[in-house]
Amino acid sequence: MSKEQNKEIVLAEHPKGVPTKETFKINDIDLPSPKDGELLLKTIYVSVDPGKRGFMDKGEDNAAGKKFQLDEAITSRSDAQVLESKSDAFKKDDIVHGRLAWKKFQAVPTDGLEKVDPELAPLQTSVSVLGVTGLAAYFGLLKIGKPKKGETVVVSGAAGSVGSTVAQIAKIKGCRVVGIAGSKAKIDYLENELGIDKGINYKKTVNMESAIKEACPDGVDVFFDNVGGDLFDAVFANSNRKSRMVICGQIAEYNDDDQPEGPRPQHLLIKKSAKIEGFVVFDFEDEFDEAKKQLADWYNSGKLKYKENLVEGFENIPSAFIGLFSGENIGKQMVKVSEEE
Amino acid sequence: MSKEQNKEIVLAEHPKGVPTKETFKINDIDLPSPKDGELLLKTIYVSVDPGKRGFMDKGEDNAAGKKFQLDEAITSRSDAQVLESKSDAFKKDDIVHGRLAWKKFQAVPTDGLEKVDPELAPLQTSVSVLGVTGLAAYFGLLKIGKPKKGETVVVSGAAGSVGSTVAQIAKIKGCRVVGIAGSKAKIDYLENELGIDKGINYKKTVNMESAIKEACPDGVDVFFDNVGGDLFDAVFANSNRKSRMVICGQIAEYNDDDQPEGPRPQHLLIKKSAKIEGFVVFDFEDEFDEAKKQLADWYNSGKLKYKENLVEGFENIPSAFIGLFSGENIGKQMVKVSEEE
Repeated sequence: MSKEQNKEIVLAEHPKGVPTKETFKINDIDLPSPKDGELLLKTIYVSVDPGKRGFMDKGEDNAAGKKFQLDEAITSRSDAQVLESKSDAFKKDDIVHGRLAWKKFQAVPTDGLEKVDPELAPLQTSVSVLGVTGLAAYFGLLKIGKPKKGETVVVSGAAGSVGSTVAQIAKIKGCRVVGIAGSKAKIDYLENELGIDKGINYKKTVNMESAIKEACPDGVDVFFDNVGGDLFDAVFANSNRKSRMVICGQIAEYNDDDQPEGPRPQHLLIKKSAKIEGFVVFDFEDEFDEAKKQLADWYNSGKLKYKENLVEGFENIPSAFIGLFSGENIGKQMVKVSEEE
Repeated sequence: MSKEQNKEIVLAEHPKGVPTKETFKINDIDLPSPKDGELLLKTIYVSVDPGKRGFMDKGEDNAAGKKFQLDEAITSRSDAQVLESKSDAFKKDDIVHGRLAWKKFQAVPTDGLEKVDPELAPLQTSVSVLGVTGLAAYFGLLKIGKPKKGETVVVSGAAGSVGSTVAQIAKIKGCRVVGIAGSKAKIDYLENELGIDKGINYKKTVNMESAIKEACPDGVDVFFDNVGGDLFDAVFANSNRKSRMVICGQIAEYNDDDQPEGPRPQHLLIKKSAKIEGFVVFDFEDEFDEAKKQLADWYNSGKLKYKENLVEGFENIPSAFIGLFSGENIGKQMVKVSEEE
């Protein structure tokens, strides 16, 4: 193992609105020694996800997870290699996946870690299309949205890591798929590389409600919403009887201090016998293995593509995270911290 | 058959806000003759329901049903006796139930009519606890709310015809039941006659969110909402992970011209993996017979009580309807138009 200096990234201050460089601080730390039952890990890939923003606020922990404390290392889903094992569960050189601290090296107990099967697909897919984002797309669409062949599925944030997977799974299931995204490059990617039926660039659209009506002549049966806000209203207005609004991450709201106001949906929910349902991917933890196999099959057969937005270097994790909120990235944002040995 | 004058009640003007006497007009009309395939019916019981208000506005028909036209008779769920049958489906003296016009006598085709089984329970239960309101309670609670034994169920509009049935079914299912209503008489009725665990008089409560927190020490698992508005927010704030908000009628909103604004629920739906789902009872039409048998069993064994708010006389249908919006009635509002022969 290399003798390089160990580092960690901690929460330096609770962000107000969009996180900035000042939100984070990089510290030099000692190389830890694993205790009995622990592993010494070297971080390889780190996933940066907008959902982490919600845990950076001051305040009480909630059911969705623990808030980050000041001067405490941020955690996110990561791949790491076992440099030393004092546990029977994993051996040296195994690649593990789980929620790990933003540290170059760390000694941790094995709870919540899973072994990455190198046969399934390339390693970095375990923080993307076979990781939390792919699983969120899979479960949110199939278990909550339950699209039927021939139905119309609308996806917001469609060029993002979750949205692009949702769009493609909906196509695999025989649906008409309309994706909403915020740049010409994203619309091109969705229509030409991923083969969805219609992309809508919300930044160039004056009346979203009419644009969606035009793009969905049979109305909307499933809306997989990664964005929220006014966009929700515009799609919901076009939703059909028994339609299902799947709420997965609300990037437009993460940075708001107050709960935003909007039209109350209840009256339309009755008229349409429709539902709005939120979820977090860990609701479906018992079914992860099955889902990963299916996602890997689709990925390996070319039916499910994804674009990596791979940033190199541990020190660039904060800027990769901050970049999520600028609306520019296509595909899965991740950071490569070190090479697999 | 009696030779009394036939009458109808039509929509005289589209109401602005709460309906008034001027919304309706009573006309003398001729006694009709049934054509082949039709029945001549004498109206016995008429159900008046707040949901009808939504169909009195000017505007397009929607998926939930047709708007009433000016000078057209209002319709609602009613019981009627067959005076003359030109159909094989029903015979003279049968009692039928269905959506009928507010007319003393009418000749109608048999579509959508069902025979009332006089063995099941007293006749007037077919417009109340075995009718649309009882069925709405049954399906909304059991098929959408899906309460489990030991869970906490909150019901708004709890002393109304739907709410009081929901509260009692939730008790039958072994839940802690908290009912929200708007008078001391209603709270007494809920706590002492129906045996729910706790009633909250929202008119005497300054902070509903704390009142619900106190009444629901284990949080809210199912909210059956007949009211909407701020009350929804107060209950939703106390809802648990995987909680289910069942939206059944929004009496607070029926009279609003604009879609009201409120805090957007999406962010909390994600944090709680919760859902908000609307329904209309006809979503479950295929299962009506089974549900009626169960409701009749509970009713006949004394487990399911209901209070009739029975108004006598055809001419009083409008005032009985208008009275629904004053918040005073306990139990099921219905009008007795004539005696069964």
